[in-house]
Amino acid sequence: MTMRILITSGGTTEKIDQVRGITNFATGTLGKLLAEHFLAANHTVILLAGLTAVVPDPHLKLTIIRISDVTSLISSITKWIPLSDVCIHTMAVSDYTPVYMTDLDTVKQTPDLTDLLTKHNLEQKISSQQDYQVLFLKKTPKVIKMIKPLNPAIILVGFKLMVDVSTEQLIQTARQSLMTNKADYILANDLTTISETQHLGLLISQYDILEAQTKHDIAALIVSKSEETYDNYHDRRNR
Amino acid sequence: MTMRILITSGGTTEKIDQVRGITNFATGTLGKLLAEHFLAANHTVILLAGLTAVVPDPHLKLTIIRISDVTSLISSITKWIPLSDVCIHTMAVSDYTPVYMTDLDTVKQTPDLTDLLTKHNLEQKISSQQDYQVLFLKKTPKVIKMIKPLNPAIILVGFKLMVDVSTEQLIQTARQSLMTNKADYILANDLTTISETQHLGLLISQYDILEAQTKHDIAALIVSKSEETYDNYHDRRNR
Repeated sequence: MTMRILITSGGTTEKIDQVRGITNFATGTLGKLLAEHFLAANHTVILLAGLTAVVPDPHLKLTIIRISDVTSLISSITKWIPLSDVCIHTMAVSDYTPVYMTDLDTVKQTPDLTDLLTKHNLEQKISSQQDYQVLFLKKTPKVIKMIKPLNPAIILVGFKLMVDVSTEQLIQTARQSLMTNKADYILANDLTTISETQHLGLLISQYDILEAQTKHDIAALIVSKSEETYDNYHDRRNR
Repeated sequence: MTMRILITSGGTTEKIDQVRGITNFATGTLGKLLAEHFLAANHTVILLAGLTAVVPDPHLKLTIIRISDVTSLISSITKWIPLSDVCIHTMAVSDYTPVYMTDLDTVKQTPDLTDLLTKHNLEQKISSQQDYQVLFLKKTPKVIKMIKPLNPAIILVGFKLMVDVSTEQLIQTARQSLMTNKADYILANDLTTISETQHLGLLISQYDILEAQTKHDIAALIVSKSEETYDNYHDRRNR
């Protein structure tokens, strides 16, 4: 069978003004590799890639769409999720977006800080005269949570990146994410065990935990589990 | 004559934590083009390039050094400025760097906000549970101002990017920067007149203002003015 795969990759950047933004670090290396593995297995791939993410070479069955911020990501997934069989959501999505930036003195002189949350920077480039600035940020919508409601039949593989935690904590957080987001798999990984040559990952489902040692391992494992899950699902439906 | 050219290009990113940062938007396209023009004119080029900046193909007379943040930029220019004849400082340098990030309620309950400026985030990845976060930022050192003190004989070309201002305002701000930073030239440009095919620029010195219409024009102009200034300077010295 040929599946339609949606991969999100790299990071999003939320603008503070026309020249500055808050970004999530992510090179897109794993997303690129996943796209290449799925293409090699003859599937069709839509790759939603952050502005600076690395991407595969052109391929007849690959479409690359560049994503700037969370709003553009939501608009793209709303279009593509209903058309896809599998979604691999590797993207490092900004969890906060700028609301208002002002200097420290202004903040000190504002009796109720909640008032500042209704303000917006009208200037195109915020002045850099003051010694201190204060940036107010608000939470962005959880993109991973929107995926299953947009297509309940989609096979969803989410990613959970933590920093310097125990394996138990990694697994527990991934299991939580599995339930909350109705994901089929969560690839749990820790920044401290990722290097040029190594990328430890645990692919966690309701049923089991599979280990991978490198980015290639992770990509191969996700391709095979996606195919297996897709086959089982369609077997059940056709029985 | 062969000159040693130091070009800074792209943008810097200041870390908030291990997974997030504040970045200045800059692709490095103009810095890459400048490097290529100087190499074509047989000069030696050191390119200090932001992590995601585009860079030229390998060349015998080109050295590329990747720059993450303002601290790494300062450490690199301290080494290279004394060894260079010309510095073209195109880099979009972060003017603020994160000090401390915390949730809105904590900020509201802190009587003197100055206390928060002495705090640091000890966690590797700041929690994303709260609806609002507040990020305190402090000004970074002005890198362009450090260049002439490190090498008074260097020919310094600075860049001034503004957004949607009048030509008069652009020229006035560039003249100010020329004096404050003891630059030989300031290339003044406005984000609203930069596109794929056009890049309006004014190369401003104490003596005149030269216009350019495209990135290629700008690069060619900067190469010829740098050579001219270098020749004049060395003629004077040898007379």
